[in-house]
Amino acid sequence: MFMEKPEKVNKLYIFILLLATTAALVAACNSSKSSTGTINIQQQGSFAVGGTVLTNPGTFDPIKHGAFNPTNQPAEGQTLHGDHAYVFYQVPEKARKLPLVFWHGHGQSARTWETTPDGREGFQNIFLRRRFPVYLLDQPRRGRAARSTKPITIAATPDEQLWFGIFRLGAYPNFYPGVQFSKQPEALNQFFRQMVPNTGPYDAQLNIDAVSGLFTKIGPGILVTHSQSGGPGWRTALKNNNVKAIVAFEPGGDYVFPQGEAPDSIKVSGRIIIPPTVPLAEFRKLTKIPIIIYYGDNIPDKPSPIPGQEQWRAFMEVAKKFREVVNKHGGDVTLVHLPAIGIKGNTHFPMSDLNNLEIANHLAVFLKGKNLD
Amino acid sequence: MFMEKPEKVNKLYIFILLLATTAALVAACNSSKSSTGTINIQQQGSFAVGGTVLTNPGTFDPIKHGAFNPTNQPAEGQTLHGDHAYVFYQVPEKARKLPLVFWHGHGQSARTWETTPDGREGFQNIFLRRRFPVYLLDQPRRGRAARSTKPITIAATPDEQLWFGIFRLGAYPNFYPGVQFSKQPEALNQFFRQMVPNTGPYDAQLNIDAVSGLFTKIGPGILVTHSQSGGPGWRTALKNNNVKAIVAFEPGGDYVFPQGEAPDSIKVSGRIIIPPTVPLAEFRKLTKIPIIIYYGDNIPDKPSPIPGQEQWRAFMEVAKKFREVVNKHGGDVTLVHLPAIGIKGNTHFPMSDLNNLEIANHLAVFLKGKNLD
Repeated sequence: MFMEKPEKVNKLYIFILLLATTAALVAACNSSKSSTGTINIQQQGSFAVGGTVLTNPGTFDPIKHGAFNPTNQPAEGQTLHGDHAYVFYQVPEKARKLPLVFWHGHGQSARTWETTPDGREGFQNIFLRRRFPVYLLDQPRRGRAARSTKPITIAATPDEQLWFGIFRLGAYPNFYPGVQFSKQPEALNQFFRQMVPNTGPYDAQLNIDAVSGLFTKIGPGILVTHSQSGGPGWRTALKNNNVKAIVAFEPGGDYVFPQGEAPDSIKVSGRIIIPPTVPLAEFRKLTKIPIIIYYGDNIPDKPSPIPGQEQWRAFMEVAKKFREVVNKHGGDVTLVHLPAIGIKGNTHFPMSDLNNLEIANHLAVFLKGKNLD
Repeated sequence: MFMEKPEKVNKLYIFILLLATTAALVAACNSSKSSTGTINIQQQGSFAVGGTVLTNPGTFDPIKHGAFNPTNQPAEGQTLHGDHAYVFYQVPEKARKLPLVFWHGHGQSARTWETTPDGREGFQNIFLRRRFPVYLLDQPRRGRAARSTKPITIAATPDEQLWFGIFRLGAYPNFYPGVQFSKQPEALNQFFRQMVPNTGPYDAQLNIDAVSGLFTKIGPGILVTHSQSGGPGWRTALKNNNVKAIVAFEPGGDYVFPQGEAPDSIKVSGRIIIPPTVPLAEFRKLTKIPIIIYYGDNIPDKPSPIPGQEQWRAFMEVAKKFREVVNKHGGDVTLVHLPAIGIKGNTHFPMSDLNNLEIANHLAVFLKGKNLD
């Protein structure tokens, strides 16, 4: 008997060691699931998609025309590849089936979805940690997709106080009370510096073509739009059946409607917006996919003299009409006005606001409920 | 005795199981070291660094000036944050001490270091797998750092056959024999689409200031320049002691020299380049850090009528002089003309050429030899 006792102790010891080693190593490997641990990336990379080619008449001569001349470049027989989108993608380990395709808004790039202005993780990392493949795009004529087939003059006009208002941080110089934006000056510095100009004339159809090309390349996915990309986002789903759901953060007023069912033109702050219409048969595509639309705080119920609030009030009115029309035809639109469900203070950028994890959680519950995760 | 046998077998079995489990899990965790496995990212994100602020006179009124007017935006009392760099960073697990800071060339963005035109991994992934933290920047007035404090007109002039030559893929329409560039048409399509225009006038000092600001923010690191960023790269190291080494891929002719020791002005394809000079005491900073300079293939020994070859011949002559002067003053410059060490066919983009892993291996050996890894 006394011989067996050490044997049993050894066996128990080895067994405990085995368990502990396994547990520790499994924990180390699984750390990507925590909110601060490692993100395990199976694949990442970038590419251009879509676009066109300009070709100049004449013949290029590599000796006669081959020297760089910054002031007067001969263009005989030369080409320009432009109007494509730029895409950076990351696929995490044990990835979910449907990727999230993130499409930025006016004056922005894929930067919108990266680190927040106050230095926390944005939707890129948050959804990688939840095992979604992510595709972050710069639309044609913006950011790293800046080569345009049409010329433009960029005026360098100071305009940030305008955007402070339209992006609903406040009515400059005052922040709205309780707004979900850091009061550290560096946050506002980073926020302003994430803006980028158009490097060619804005062209919604060209953007739709490039993003549809992306869905053709990558297959089924969930399109996440923001602001200016909202309108072309609806039309991308009409064009490409690989768009399996749309998540729209504060889209503009250019919702798509069936012919004869559009609201009147929207007059907002001196501009007139006429929602585009399509035949009902085409429109029905939007009734086949789950759609969720988010609007944040400080959007009034009644017309406001503050243009930075008024345009979103007008656009949210169109959103209500869009929900009504899509759902009447058998669709599945959820419209979330965040303060109405108790989530207060959001700006035009819920994906990078101080409570962006709460927004991500809300979205994750929606995706799960629609079997999109 | 017969009682003890199963005990021993169990013990052995458990021991083997323990070893096997440990080995398997360690292997799984370490897969980031292979060239195709998971990359384990401890941190990733983006930020703006450097730049200035334009402020317009007057007072902004959020009601009177708060509506978006795409054709005539009032600028009273408004600001523009511009001229910063944009930086995306990734820190792998068990990271080496010194990060690599990748700075692109003319007409490019950080895209240069990502996926190659033919779809393989670029230096971003290759050096992440070797456990270097990587910082990929878009310099001021380029890509995602496009907001400029000075206006510009972008002409959309077709010019790609020029770049085909200057980037030494060949003399258009012919590729150079044995060139390390894929002949698949999609590779050339992707290559052309990675170009981006200046979104403000090119300003080397402004770029130096932003990249120096980056080194102040992140601490010691290795600066990797390409082409146009070569010149400002030298001057960034003069400005910021956190630049602990420089890796320069095909820098232009604007090497820095001590006063009185510069070569004559360089006349290349109708342009005249005068290398900048600094006092010797300042120049000596460049003698304190390891420097490696790479040039690829199809750079002739003697003057060539082909401008796309001739400019690199002239610039490599300056490189030789730079090596001589720095090393004479006690420095450590290694100049690698790749064909001279048997690595043939490289274009102006060795970091994304077909043999980019061979180039990365060469660089890794250099970094190890200088205790920089």
